Amino acid sequence: MDLKQLGEFGLIRRISREFSVPAGVTGIGDDCAVLPQQDGLSTLVTTDMLVEGTHFLSSDISPYRLGWKSAAVNISDIAAMGGAPRGSFLAFALPKGLDSTWTDEFVRGYKEASLLSGTPLLGGDTTASPDRISICVTVIGDCPSGREVRRSGARTGDLVCVTGALGDSAGGLRVILDGIPRSADEEALVDRHYRPVPKVAEGQAIAKAGASAMMDISDGIGSDLQHILDASGVGAEIDCKAIPTSAQLRRCAGRHGWDTEALAIDGGEDYELLFTIDPAAVDSPAFPCHVIGRIVDGDSVTWLHSASGRHQGYKHF
Amino acid sequence: MDLKQLGEFGLIRRISREFSVPAGVTGIGDDCAVLPQQDGLSTLVTTDMLVEGTHFLSSDISPYRLGWKSAAVNISDIAAMGGAPRGSFLAFALPKGLDSTWTDEFVRGYKEASLLSGTPLLGGDTTASPDRISICVTVIGDCPSGREVRRSGARTGDLVCVTGALGDSAGGLRVILDGIPRSADEEALVDRHYRPVPKVAEGQAIAKAGASAMMDISDGIGSDLQHILDASGVGAEIDCKAIPTSAQLRRCAGRHGWDTEALAIDGGEDYELLFTIDPAAVDSPAFPCHVIGRIVDGDSVTWLHSASGRHQGYKHF
Repeated sequence: MDLKQLGEFGLIRRISREFSVPAGVTGIGDDCAVLPQQDGLSTLVTTDMLVEGTHFLSSDISPYRLGWKSAAVNISDIAAMGGAPRGSFLAFALPKGLDSTWTDEFVRGYKEASLLSGTPLLGGDTTASPDRISICVTVIGDCPSGREVRRSGARTGDLVCVTGALGDSAGGLRVILDGIPRSADEEALVDRHYRPVPKVAEGQAIAKAGASAMMDISDGIGSDLQHILDASGVGAEIDCKAIPTSAQLRRCAGRHGWDTEALAIDGGEDYELLFTIDPAAVDSPAFPCHVIGRIVDGDSVTWLHSASGRHQGYKHF
Repeated sequence: MDLKQLGEFGLIRRISREFSVPAGVTGIGDDCAVLPQQDGLSTLVTTDMLVEGTHFLSSDISPYRLGWKSAAVNISDIAAMGGAPRGSFLAFALPKGLDSTWTDEFVRGYKEASLLSGTPLLGGDTTASPDRISICVTVIGDCPSGREVRRSGARTGDLVCVTGALGDSAGGLRVILDGIPRSADEEALVDRHYRPVPKVAEGQAIAKAGASAMMDISDGIGSDLQHILDASGVGAEIDCKAIPTSAQLRRCAGRHGWDTEALAIDGGEDYELLFTIDPAAVDSPAFPCHVIGRIVDGDSVTWLHSASGRHQGYKHF
């Protein structure tokens, strides 16, 4: 069986069943691994690989933006559990002929995204690649033990919420791929695609408010929400009309004939937080909170008021 | 300036000067980053990238051996600071057409190397690559705060020691690359090349004994020792005749006309530990200890009784 047949999640299951995990430790299957320490804090760890030709094309993304994104998406995984990032580790394989201005610009973007949450670069690895650029970023963080918000805690009756507008990043990608001329609206979407902002303070506030489950939206809620449902053993009803979208996205959709709902649900990489929480906790929340549905008995999503029916996220294999 | 001119260490310096590191934290420049916790332990973190075509050829190394090596070399970095590994994170980018038996075999080797030190796999990332396999492993561990052994503590008068025979891995690589027919001796060297054993218990015992500086030997002592000297601001005299080599290596060297000393000094990937320690601490050591020289005032290595003069390690760019 090749990996395309096995699929990303099939492969992860196949690997994770080979390893037993110490008591109290959360291993594979959430945004971060969680390792309780002895001082009331838990260490959070996340890692991500980006490969030229799969995740980016050097002709399409500047090293500055790539650096930004590499840091941001991993810091976002710490945010998605309600943690505080403590440091990042940057490993990359680079072609020997690459000019050092490329790495300077990459590091400039990486640094700017890291400084938004005060995350220092603490280590890494630099090595040569025969051709393509590969980047692997690891971020460690911590949070009070027991307060880390997993994917598995959603309960029937909880609200399903997101921290902000969805679909902008996917809209930005359409602008890039279709070579659409850019007014301020299109530029704003492209910037959201290239420079996502990890919701670190928001994630900590949501965790403090007692969210039952949380993750960041990397593949699109069409598939990301299903991870929460699978881990929690519940279903959800989502009101497609309640999903927040930006004025820029709606204007661009009108201008270029896009399906806003499809971009908001199936489009990934917004890095907003998706969370479930008791209705009483969002009466006057101290964090951005758009209610888009609720958790119900079941095992899948019912999309209410949807024009386009069932939705799928991005498949890696 | 391209990266070949800048060099690996030039690039690292260029990146690390961009980031400030919180007080008490050790960032770039040692085997691991060191983050003190509040409970008297320090968290250690190390990460390494392996790319097909630079670090391995799929035609030359089985997925089982590659999996072993990927885990072992990172666990070795934790050992090199005297720490206990707590968990590993495996990110890889794989071509879509790769058969799942490849990942099964890779994971089998990874698991066997991990189990030597009881290190669980706690997370990672699996993604598609257009062609080459890229692997990035991160290992976290811990050690009592202040007992982590850095590269920077060597003092004039300390002994320079290694935990075991050097050059076997480089000899094994010669066997592979030159297609040399294999008797038991050659097989043993090839196995040392493909299945290095991280010296975790040894590293902890050496740390407990008060070693002043330590690192694992990945590039060969010819260049690795210089890292300790640079970090510590000292020099060293090494007695080339005191460098331990295995009987297998010496027999193979005789058989195939190899320069044993060059393999032992310039050959990397033995993953023995190189450490400096007060002479009084090695009277009856509770760890493997071969004294190969001593730390002196200065800034470089003097190779005594050497047939081949000054030595260089492997350059990544």
